[in-house]
Amino acid sequence: MDLGDIARRSFDSTSKGIPSPGSVTPGSVAQKNWNLLNDDLHFPTMVLLDSVVEHNLKTMAKWCAANGFLFAPHGKTTMCPQLYQRQLEVGAWGITVASAQQAMVAVKFGVKRILIANQLVGRANICSVALALGADPGLEVHCIVDSVEGVQHLAGHLKEAGALRPIKVLLEGGREGWRTGVRSLEEGRQVLAAIRKHPAQLEFSGFEGYEGIARLEEGALVKEYLDTLIRDVDTLAKELPKPATPFLFSVGGTSFLDYQHEILPSLKGRYQVVVRSGCYVTHDHGNYVAHIQRTHARGMGDEAWPPLKQALELWSLVQSVRDGKTAILTFGRRDAPHDGDLPLPLYVVRPGQSKREARKLEGAKVAKLNDQHAFMTIPPGVELHVGDRVACGIIHPCTAFDKWPVIPLVDDAYKVIDLYCTYF
Amino acid sequence: MDLGDIARRSFDSTSKGIPSPGSVTPGSVAQKNWNLLNDDLHFPTMVLLDSVVEHNLKTMAKWCAANGFLFAPHGKTTMCPQLYQRQLEVGAWGITVASAQQAMVAVKFGVKRILIANQLVGRANICSVALALGADPGLEVHCIVDSVEGVQHLAGHLKEAGALRPIKVLLEGGREGWRTGVRSLEEGRQVLAAIRKHPAQLEFSGFEGYEGIARLEEGALVKEYLDTLIRDVDTLAKELPKPATPFLFSVGGTSFLDYQHEILPSLKGRYQVVVRSGCYVTHDHGNYVAHIQRTHARGMGDEAWPPLKQALELWSLVQSVRDGKTAILTFGRRDAPHDGDLPLPLYVVRPGQSKREARKLEGAKVAKLNDQHAFMTIPPGVELHVGDRVACGIIHPCTAFDKWPVIPLVDDAYKVIDLYCTYF
Repeated sequence: MDLGDIARRSFDSTSKGIPSPGSVTPGSVAQKNWNLLNDDLHFPTMVLLDSVVEHNLKTMAKWCAANGFLFAPHGKTTMCPQLYQRQLEVGAWGITVASAQQAMVAVKFGVKRILIANQLVGRANICSVALALGADPGLEVHCIVDSVEGVQHLAGHLKEAGALRPIKVLLEGGREGWRTGVRSLEEGRQVLAAIRKHPAQLEFSGFEGYEGIARLEEGALVKEYLDTLIRDVDTLAKELPKPATPFLFSVGGTSFLDYQHEILPSLKGRYQVVVRSGCYVTHDHGNYVAHIQRTHARGMGDEAWPPLKQALELWSLVQSVRDGKTAILTFGRRDAPHDGDLPLPLYVVRPGQSKREARKLEGAKVAKLNDQHAFMTIPPGVELHVGDRVACGIIHPCTAFDKWPVIPLVDDAYKVIDLYCTYF
Repeated sequence: MDLGDIARRSFDSTSKGIPSPGSVTPGSVAQKNWNLLNDDLHFPTMVLLDSVVEHNLKTMAKWCAANGFLFAPHGKTTMCPQLYQRQLEVGAWGITVASAQQAMVAVKFGVKRILIANQLVGRANICSVALALGADPGLEVHCIVDSVEGVQHLAGHLKEAGALRPIKVLLEGGREGWRTGVRSLEEGRQVLAAIRKHPAQLEFSGFEGYEGIARLEEGALVKEYLDTLIRDVDTLAKELPKPATPFLFSVGGTSFLDYQHEILPSLKGRYQVVVRSGCYVTHDHGNYVAHIQRTHARGMGDEAWPPLKQALELWSLVQSVRDGKTAILTFGRRDAPHDGDLPLPLYVVRPGQSKREARKLEGAKVAKLNDQHAFMTIPPGVELHVGDRVACGIIHPCTAFDKWPVIPLVDDAYKVIDLYCTYF
């Protein structure tokens, strides 16, 4: 990968988190000696804890290796090429994305194997991927198909774009009431037949499914889905000519890692199993904590759901203390995920205090968000003042990253050592 | 304003909506002859309808003039300097923002009067504003205070930053259970006394309130709040030395324009009334439609709530049609507001069709959003195909703009005539 363009990008105080005066680049920010706890940054700011990211990267790489899985972490979570590079450095097989635009980000910064875990539709979208494939013989792109109509649409636009070589396609197996994907063996057969009609545009590379749409309590459904998917895939694979290398078999999501661990290792040898977790890189204070508890309740431990740690912290300031019970904080919907539970207050650090003097905010709760304000209930016995720094954990990483074009990477002392850039 | 830096910004297909190959600038995009309905853009894309924006800008300017209001449209809605320029061109008195970072965006592109409708807190945040005031004698910045502690915090950091001249401050009057703002006359008096202790850092410029926190059905509460605010402000103003020009009196929000129209014109002469609507610039298909209905139910018409039109359209593609009843569209939480109602399907245009051939999607509903997918129910009698283009209206403009770094501005034929850039 070539991240030189990122290292030289110039940011100033028009970007959230970055202070005046002047400008700064990711490549030179460490020389500024900015420290979050010195109030050197604009608040609110969301920071990535470098050592925790490193822990998560290595932990997940180890988990995938132990299970015999190839790993194509979902890049849509972070849309951060600097993280893609670190993911690839510890052994990722490729990077997963969700759209043509996201694929273009991966291409621009030099990712050589991209899994578009989505149906690729639209003339311009398909043309962009065709151009990228034509420009770099070393680039490998897979995408998903789930209907005869979709196959014809994709092949037609690739032909129209003058694609020089085929895109690899995975057949998606879905489930009634879930999202995309064929709903039956027969439908799968028809899509496979349609793919074969466009050998100059489409190269069948394997099978795909997505179990992450299931809710926390639907583990049994996930098992049923994966078992059915494997049975159907085995049936369809037997009807196809044997490939030179085994077909891919890919599933996604971080939520049901325990079921991936339980069911998928049996596929080894028959398929190249590719998993696509994205949120593991930062973990969270909500969804995934619940999934770990669920996994432990099934009698499984770290071997089934790797011991990840929380790497994202959203820092804001107390701007007003009202009615004795509520602190208004300087962040809102623009800064924090709000598609599930709201951010979790972790601790408060008064100006001049170091992290060791942080006071935990147990019992505090973000009760409501406006666009630019958070309403935090103040726990009994805690006194808050204007200017106090409050750190919150976030619940859904995918909708945290997309609110921050620049995310300071900090060391354990909260010194800013890099600026991670996102491309949403 | 100087928007040259924006006109020369270079975008490529790593930005949502922009197709390959090559790059494009806002200043040169019109020469590309891209048309949304030719599938020239990556989907999803959110577009601004130029003629509708123009209608809203003029309609609101006229409404403010008719009521005797100064207008400082809330820039946080769009964070788009190109729209700030158009707002100022039709007579806006200044631009409102919500944070130091947003103020820096306005400063960078040459806005000369900025109302930070928020408590300004934090060392770096306050320092940035002090530096901007020091660098440009023609810059006027107002911000809000609502506590003695906040006043001391602000004045202390301005002093520490070596501020060359005072920032203007507005006293905020709040309401028990709402958000920020003093809760009593006596508290207001104390804050005013605290302001007077820091004449080198703070210059009192008037009074402020925010009624937009009220819910749709709370019109009576808004009236009560505004009446109380005016009574208290009159009391406090009489206790102060008479200013050379009348104090400011500012309230905000687009929701209760009818109450602003009903109550605030009586202040003419006593105060300079500044209103701060932000969402008027695009209007929406939800919140504000309901407020217009509420206004009409009160027996009031266009004189009370100006006749705005919907200027934002979110375009996506059908990527999969499942279970006969659901179309999966290529947009999700990353692309659309989801803090209230989900986007409203407006019409479908098949590839090759023009806007005149669009088919209305009455009865269709976005039932659910994932990060990158929308689940749209298909109305009876409508047949949808992979690649069909679906236009949706959006509900909350503030959380629509923040998901799009680049928004194509289109003419009535959907030709792209500019790229509007946002700075979130």
